[in-house]
This record gives sequence, structure tokens and C-alpha cells, in this order.
Amino acid sequence: MAPQDSPHAPGSERDPQRMEAFSDAVFAIAITLIVVDIKVPPLESPGNLASALLGLWPNYLGYLFSFTIIGIYWVNHHYTGKLYVRADHTFNLLNLLFLLAIAFLPFPTHVLADYIMDEADRTVAAAFYTGTLVLPAAGWLLKWLYASHRGRILDPHLDGKFVHRLTVRYTASFLIYLVAMVLTLTVSWIGIAVATAVTLFYLLPPPDPVYVQAKPR
Amino acid sequence: MAPQDSPHAPGSERDPQRMEAFSDAVFAIAITLIVVDIKVPPLESPGNLASALLGLWPNYLGYLFSFTIIGIYWVNHHYTGKLYVRADHTFNLLNLLFLLAIAFLPFPTHVLADYIMDEADRTVAAAFYTGTLVLPAAGWLLKWLYASHRGRILDPHLDGKFVHRLTVRYTASFLIYLVAMVLTLTVSWIGIAVATAVTLFYLLPPPDPVYVQAKPR
Amino acid sequence: MAPQDSPHAPGSERDPQRMEAFSDAVFAIAITLIVVDIKVPPLESPGNLASALLGLWPNYLGYLFSFTIIGIYWVNHHYTGKLYVRADHTFNLLNLLFLLAIAFLPFPTHVLADYIMDEADRTVAAAFYTGTLVLPAAGWLLKWLYASHRGRILDPHLDGKFVHRLTVRYTASFLIYLVAMVLTLTVSWIGIAVATAVTLFYLLPPPDPVYVQAKPR
Amino acid sequence: MAPQDSPHAPGSERDPQRMEAFSDAVFAIAITLIVVDIKVPPLESPGNLASALLGLWPNYLGYLFSFTIIGIYWVNHHYTGKLYVRADHTFNLLNLLFLLAIAFLPFPTHVLADYIMDEADRTVAAAFYTGTLVLPAAGWLLKWLYASHRGRILDPHLDGKFVHRLTVRYTASFLIYLVAMVLTLTVSWIGIAVATAVTLFYLLPPPDPVYVQAKPR
Repeated sequence: MAPQDSPHAPGSERDPQRMEAFSDAVFAIAITLIVVDIKVPPLESPGNLASALLGLWPNYLGYLFSFTIIGIYWVNHHYTGKLYVRADHTFNLLNLLFLLAIAFLPFPTHVLADYIMDEADRTVAAAFYTGTLVLPAAGWLLKWLYASHRGRILDPHLDGKFVHRLTVRYTASFLIYLVAMVLTLTVSWIGIAVATAVTLFYLLPPPDPVYVQAKPR
Repeated sequence: MAPQDSPHAPGSERDPQRMEAFSDAVFAIAITLIVVDIKVPPLESPGNLASALLGLWPNYLGYLFSFTIIGIYWVNHHYTGKLYVRADHTFNLLNLLFLLAIAFLPFPTHVLADYIMDEADRTVAAAFYTGTLVLPAAGWLLKWLYASHRGRILDPHLDGKFVHRLTVRYTASFLIYLVAMVLTLTVSWIGIAVATAVTLFYLLPPPDPVYVQAKPR
Repeated sequence: MAPQDSPHAPGSERDPQRMEAFSDAVFAIAITLIVVDIKVPPLESPGNLASALLGLWPNYLGYLFSFTIIGIYWVNHHYTGKLYVRADHTFNLLNLLFLLAIAFLPFPTHVLADYIMDEADRTVAAAFYTGTLVLPAAGWLLKWLYASHRGRILDPHLDGKFVHRLTVRYTASFLIYLVAMVLTLTVSWIGIAVATAVTLFYLLPPPDPVYVQAKPR
Repeated sequence: MAPQDSPHAPGSERDPQRMEAFSDAVFAIAITLIVVDIKVPPLESPGNLASALLGLWPNYLGYLFSFTIIGIYWVNHHYTGKLYVRADHTFNLLNLLFLLAIAFLPFPTHVLADYIMDEADRTVAAAFYTGTLVLPAAGWLLKWLYASHRGRILDPHLDGKFVHRLTVRYTASFLIYLVAMVLTLTVSWIGIAVATAVTLFYLLPPPDPVYVQAKPR
């Protein structure tokens, strides 16, 4: 299985390295931009900086939570990157769809932080946030389904049961984020708690890849 | 054909990897910055967040459309990257010209989103947007013409007819974007529809490279 | 010791290159974003630009100091990168924790620059700044402790005394930043001076790695 | 001459690739951030968008000029990258000093665009801009002098006369930028013209590296 980027290799596929490098840059910018929107409001009177800084706690929490989510997607992008041996046109487009959702996250984070303490608008802000968490989960799942049902993207030596296990995992996550969004519309805090729980689950190490030695391409 | 980056290789050309990595970073930032300008306006009264978020639909659409355009350029940059075997000074400068146009796109996107619902300024905003779409198409075409008429940039084993096919394709796209800009000045929506159509055409997979085995450098 | 990214290599570890590339992007954005927040205030009268630009000196100083800190972390990330031979899930998460602290730095830098000349809020601004300097030092130390106590991350040929020397160095830095934060709460300038001193210490070249030739994995 | 990044290679130097990748990210962000500051001012009356967009011409010009300067530095960073075979601690620090100046450029660009049409503040804005152009030229020269007087950074096979030729070139550029700054303080337009001329000179292809075959390390 020669590298796809070697000169005159047939087809328009390439090694996945460049797709990974581009994705890394988008991840890095999305993760960093959340801080740009944190601003100290004008102080009511001199000497009030400490309370103004403390009053920004929803922004710190939003930064922490969105950094965690984007960071965990990065870790899993890193992890699945080992399973891919190629990147073709459709795979690149699906990866872009996924990144579209990642790069959007700083906006709902900011909305959530601004309105979470606001009785009248809290529910909408929370639902908007958990709603936008469904998008990267959907993009991720689509990307995985395309890769896992096309032997030319996934390493063909991967064990079928192992691949199936990841399919189940990513489908379940997408569905739980969907449920979390619906829950947020009724009881905000429960929806956010469910979204948090499924996110934190990915802090656990992912399963080691299982290879079938003999299976040829 | 030894790599250009090997020590003491003659000439000042280098392998195209670094040019690609730099371009990827510019793409990633341009694609991500569009979200930075999306802000919730001050609410008219408490409980209005939902309608304020819905009222931002031109911004979401602008983000979606500009992300798609920049993303498609990235996919094609990725695709043509397989056809290049070198990067020289002029090629780097033309790539910078192309990136100059890409990095500018967040600004007209923002202008379009702000004025598309504004009867008096809609035409100007739309023409400014489609006008700036001509620029990356022009930069891309120049870059391709330089690469395809200088055997030292393109892989010399590529089939002449295949190269010609891409030249026709990129020239046509540039001309259609030009027509779209002119149309926008008269009927905004038709101009934008034409620009959208040519953009969406590139969602189709590009043709597989065709190589002539025997042709030496 | 074959590369971790070779096809079908057992385990979910990968070569550390991608972790490094992602970190570089976060470093680069954090370092560059500090400038975005520097704005010329509205001039009191025409012809006042020179004094307005001079009046921004705390912003220039903040830029210089935070650029130096992030830059020095980058140099050391570069340095330790030579000592790592793998990146696993936990290591990636700890690296993300470290980057979370790095990407946050533009905010306290801005706060410090805005309030350093403000008698009533200076102490809080300075303590907030030195306080946030503790975070990357803590993240760095955690990352190092994990790497140095797990032979699978660090190059197994490294000399134990050399590794211990770095452990002492990174622990000491963390503790000194902690002391600097406490000092800042009492006498701002002394705290900042201590934080500056420990930072500038890292401008000195780091020790050359020492390898034990014979020791097998 | 084995790669510096191979396991257990003595010393703390590494191959220059990571230094290049990090620099590329800083270049890419600095080049892209200039657009973020371009904003349409509130329209005086509906239907005024066209004239408002035309009125931003100093911003477009500033974007074009600063993009050109940063782009040209990138092209030359790319060019000299072929001459380097290592990156050590001091070299990394000097490269950071150079990047500090590059990442600062969006700010004076913005100042220049805002005040160039303002009789009373034009001279100061122009001098601030040409003054900040001296900084990357100085950082570049320092980096080159360190690299060219330490055989361990530059490819040791490079011809001495060729290296000297580049030293002369980079020293001259630094001095001319210095002269341009002084000129700007007296006659703004002449200073800017001189800075433009020396910048545009670098659009010409750089000299091909000359190697001395026999000289050993």
C-alpha cells in the first residue's frame, strides 16, 4: 500500500496528512477565539475590578466547556486519524462539514455566557447552545459512516467488529446530543447536564484498534 | 526526480509542502474569522433572544456560503497539490495573490449579511460580494496558468489533454464569476444565483489525474 | 522502535508530530491575538495621535511580556518535543489542559494593560495576571510528570539524572509562579518582578539531553 | 549529516521544520487579521453603502501593502529555509523576535489607514508605520547574522561569497527602512515611497544558492 502522495499515484486521493493539518488549524483557531470575546465591562466605580472579573464567571465556564468539547473532538480526530489511510474528495467535503460546525461554536458559547444568568432568555440561550452541539456530532457521524463503509478510506486491515463498535459509539453520541437539545427546551439544566455527560465520557481513553492480520485489501 | 528540499539541491525551488501548509493556515483562519463578526444585537426587551437569534439568519447564511466557497477552494488546493512537484518564487507570489483574495472574503461576507435586507443598499452589498468572488478565481487561474505552462511546477508526467481540461475549467469559472458580478449590478438575486451555481459545481469530484508513463522530464 | 503511525502499529498512540503541529497553531494564535485588542482611543483633539500612541505603552509592554512568555513556552515545547517519542490519549489531554491556559493569556494581558495605571484596580489586575501565569506552569508540570513517569512517552534512552533535573526545574518554576501570585496580592511590582525573573531564566539555553546508550526499552 | 530529530541525536538542536511550521502559522494569522479591523461605518443615510465602501480605500490599501510586506517576508523565510539545516535555542529566540515584529504589523496598518487622510495626524501615523517596518527588518538581520556566523545553522556547503551577498542585502534593507522612517518624519510620502521601493525589490526572485562541493563540515 504505497503512499497516495507519491508521484503519479493513480486517482485523486491523497494521504490524510494535509486534511489533518488543515483541520488542526481550524480546531486551534476555534478553541482560541472564544477568549477574544471575553471583555471586562466598564467598571461602575474605581476599585470594582475584582468583582467585575468574578462576574465574568459564565464566560470562563463557557470557555472551559467549549475548549473541552473542541479539545475532545481534536483528541478523537487524532485518534481516528490513525485509522484512515486516504482522503478523497467526498471525505474532504464531509470533514469540512464537520469543521463548519466546530468553527461555529464560539458564537453559541458567547450567547450562552451572556444570557445564562438572565431569567427570561436562559432557556433559549441553553437550547441554542446544546442545539449547535448536535451539528459537530452529526458531521462526525457522517464522516465516520462514509469512511467505514468505503474500504478505501479506512485501513482495510481493521477488524470489522472494532469498526462496528465505533459506529455504535458515534451514533449513540449523536442521538444523546439530540436528546439533550430537546431536554434543554424543557428543563435547561438537565439538557446541559446530559450534553456534559456525553462529552466527558470521551475523556476516557478510546479502544485500541484491532487489526485482522491476514485480510488483504 | 529528487526532492527539492534535499541538502544542496540546485536552484531555489523547494518541495510544495511548506507552501501548502502556509496556505492551509490562511484558509483555516479566513474560514473561522467569519464567525467572529456574528454578534447578538442588544435585545429590545427581555425574552427576545429567540427572535434576535432568528434575525441573524443572513449572518448564518453568509457564514455557510463563504465557508462553502473557501472550503471548496481548499478542497481544490488539496487536489491540485497532488499535481505540483515544486514551488518557486513566482509560484509562491501568485499563491500569495490568491490568498490575499481568500483572506479578504470575511469582510464582504459581513457587508452582505448586514445589508441584504436593506432595500436601498442591497444591490451594492451583493455586487461588492460577487465582485470580490472574482478575485480568488482570478488568482487561482493565474497560478494555474503559470504552473501549467512551466513544466518545472507541474508533474511532467501529466497528460497534456488532462492539463488542458483543467485550464478550460478554471478559465470558465473565472469568466462566469465575472458575469455573475455584472448580473448582480442589474438583478442582485440572479447574479448571486449564478455565483452559487458555479461554486456548487465544484462540490462534484474533480477528474482523476491522467499520466503519460513514458514522457521524461 | 518503529514509528507509531506506521499502518497497523498496535495501540492507539501516535507519533508526537500532530500533537506538536496542533500546539504550534494554538501558540501562534494566542501570541498574535494580543495585538488585536490594541486600539487607539478617540483623540481628544486633532494632532494628538502621537501622545495617544505613546499612552498605549502598557499595551505594548503587555504584548511584549505575554509574547515573551508564550514564545518561551513554545521554545521549551520545541525542546521537550525532541524527548518525546509518542503521544497517547492522556498525554494529549494534559497537553490540551496546558494549551487551555496558554490560549487564555491574551485576556489577563489586556486586563493588566488597561488597569496598571489605575491606582484603585492595579493590584487586582496584576494579581489576576500573575495568577493566570500559574496555570500554564501547572499544566506544563503535569504533562512532564506524566511523560517522565511513563516510559512510553519519553525516549527510553534518556538518562535518569537528566530527566530528574528537568523535573526539579519545572516543579521549581511552578512553585515560583505560585509565590509570585501571592506576592502580587501584597506588593504588585515585586510579584511581577519575580514572575518576570523566572520567565527570563528560560531565555538561557536548556540543558543538552543526556542519553544512556545501552538501556533497552 | 543525519537529521537532528532522529532519536538520541546529540545536542538540543532540531531540524528546522517545526520552527518553520510555527512561523507559518504566525505569518498566516498576522496576514489575515488585518481584514478583521475593516468595518463599514454607520451609513449617514440609506443608499450610501457604495460611497461608504469606497471611502474605506485607505483600509484596502493598508491591507494590500501590509499583506505584501508580510507575504514577501514569508517568501524569503521560505527561501532561506532551504539554507538552514538546524534550529537551536538562540536561533529560535531570534526567530521569535522577528515574529514579534511581524505579528505587531496589523496595529500600525490600522493606525495608518485611520489617519492618513487626516491633515493633523498624518505624519505621525506614517512615521509610526514606517517605524514599525524597521523592526522585522532588524529581527531578520539579527537572525541571519547569527545563522551565517554559526556554521551549525547554515548548510556548511554554501559558498562563502553567496552567504556574504545575502548579508549585504539584508543589512542594506535594514538601513534603508531606517532611512525611510527618518524621511517619513519630515516628508511622509517620500518615506513611504522609499519603504515601498525596498519592499517591492524583494518581489524579484532571490539569487540561487551556490554550493561548494568539497568543503566538509
